[in-house]
Amino acid sequence: MAFPADDMPDRIRIHEVGPRDGLQNEKTVVPTPVKAEFIRRLADAGLRTIEATSFVHPKWVPQLADAERLMAMLDGVEARLPVLVPNERGLERALALGVREIAVFGSATESFAKANLNRSVDESLAMFEPVVARARDAGASVRGYLSMCFGDPWEGPVPVAQVVGVARRLFDLGCTELSLGDTIGVATPGHVTELLVSLHQVGISADHLAVHFHDTYGQALANTLSALQSGVTTVDASAGGIGGCPYAKSATGNLATEDLVWMLNGLGIDTGVDLDRLTATSVWMADHLGRPSPSRTVRALSHEDSHEEQ
Amino acid sequence: MAFPADDMPDRIRIHEVGPRDGLQNEKTVVPTPVKAEFIRRLADAGLRTIEATSFVHPKWVPQLADAERLMAMLDGVEARLPVLVPNERGLERALALGVREIAVFGSATESFAKANLNRSVDESLAMFEPVVARARDAGASVRGYLSMCFGDPWEGPVPVAQVVGVARRLFDLGCTELSLGDTIGVATPGHVTELLVSLHQVGISADHLAVHFHDTYGQALANTLSALQSGVTTVDASAGGIGGCPYAKSATGNLATEDLVWMLNGLGIDTGVDLDRLTATSVWMADHLGRPSPSRTVRALSHEDSHEEQ
Repeated sequence: MAFPADDMPDRIRIHEVGPRDGLQNEKTVVPTPVKAEFIRRLADAGLRTIEATSFVHPKWVPQLADAERLMAMLDGVEARLPVLVPNERGLERALALGVREIAVFGSATESFAKANLNRSVDESLAMFEPVVARARDAGASVRGYLSMCFGDPWEGPVPVAQVVGVARRLFDLGCTELSLGDTIGVATPGHVTELLVSLHQVGISADHLAVHFHDTYGQALANTLSALQSGVTTVDASAGGIGGCPYAKSATGNLATEDLVWMLNGLGIDTGVDLDRLTATSVWMADHLGRPSPSRTVRALSHEDSHEEQ
Repeated sequence: MAFPADDMPDRIRIHEVGPRDGLQNEKTVVPTPVKAEFIRRLADAGLRTIEATSFVHPKWVPQLADAERLMAMLDGVEARLPVLVPNERGLERALALGVREIAVFGSATESFAKANLNRSVDESLAMFEPVVARARDAGASVRGYLSMCFGDPWEGPVPVAQVVGVARRLFDLGCTELSLGDTIGVATPGHVTELLVSLHQVGISADHLAVHFHDTYGQALANTLSALQSGVTTVDASAGGIGGCPYAKSATGNLATEDLVWMLNGLGIDTGVDLDRLTATSVWMADHLGRPSPSRTVRALSHEDSHEEQ
């Protein structure tokens, strides 16, 4: 076959968010050795960028209170292991461990900035300014998450110009990459294209962007396809589809890494991921979490044996 | 917004397959009045083509043994109500009721032709020949379902040339439309494009084609987007995502009509469907079937109330 098609990239970098974004809202605390094993298995399956944890105050995200202990258990893992930092205190904790890839978490809307950060958008950017500057001075790369890029549970559809404005400011602060988040999963492919075109028009090209889609309305993979067609080569996904926005309208969450890899394999786009090993990892993690993976691919591949008995 | 995009159609016809394809493998027989009410509600939600039933021998599909009784209950439903016919006997039953839109169900692979029809591909086409001829003589349109167009559970990937060959023969028999089925859900967007381009090269244009995707690996909506970008304007879907191939590797089945409508609404493509009424219908049907809808959009929209209480 003649894949990949002319309008598609040869290679995609998957930014695996399962250990951080996937686990952060789990009510039952996952033991640190299980998290470390999860990350190790993800790396063994071929994932090369795995967001490991967040250096957030334990009061806000008890699940990730073990960030230092977890990082200490990850020596030798052959993957980039970026971490989220909410503020200067979190950044210093990460830098002290030698971490040189960090991420900050911003919002395109005032309502979500208030709900998630207890600040206005301006105030949150002012808070990020010294964090990004200090990180860059220390030689770290800085990913900016920009949430609610398409719709907001309180404000409805988010104007593209508003998203472009906040994106521009995050780059001006010194962010090296921006991850465009459809936090409540309402985006559709034309909206994705429109945002990417508008960002391009203000000088933000696709090679500095990642996309982060949620599957609340089943749109995540179609939106990803649309983003790839617009030149994006970094895609966020969560092994097994774990995690999800607590503000979204149902339990479905992140784009499942397996569903993404299935599509990319079919498109002839190299990811370096061994789908069977990744699926086995997600089945193992689902057992720990006590409920089946929401990933269609995980469900289908893990039913292979029962199928063959038919 | 500037939707629909230049490369997208203004309007899509949804071929709703829930009452036939969605219900045919249900083990518990759904009462005929419930089926009639289902179809009536689908029409009230704005669906204009609803495949109602199959005039198959009751021994093979007990669930659809009530075809005549059901059709008699559908007077006044404002929608096209095509039916599946497996053979000449089934066709005569349908024609006797005044039905003038029928469908036959073929296979692109020998293995599935054998498993589903107990015939070779040649033998099945020979069986369809008088059915299609008689239907056309009676003034009926004839949809040809072509299953296993991408992969086959016994044969693996299906060569595009093989699919094109069987497709060509179905049109030569007199079929007026062909529905390309990814019966086990393994297709990916580049494969879809390649098949549509190859069909175009032998004179089968997209306006005579429909696509019929299954969501077994989460690919159905991305594949649909790819088909729309290649000019297809008829899309098969099943309300609530009910139904699925018994040969596929997990329980997930047809592309959910609601997930499709969510995407098309976002793309500014007219479908005439009222998403809230459709979702309410799928929730109602899920109650009858005794399990939740697999559609992400149905789950999200039907959780709206509980969200607002948060």
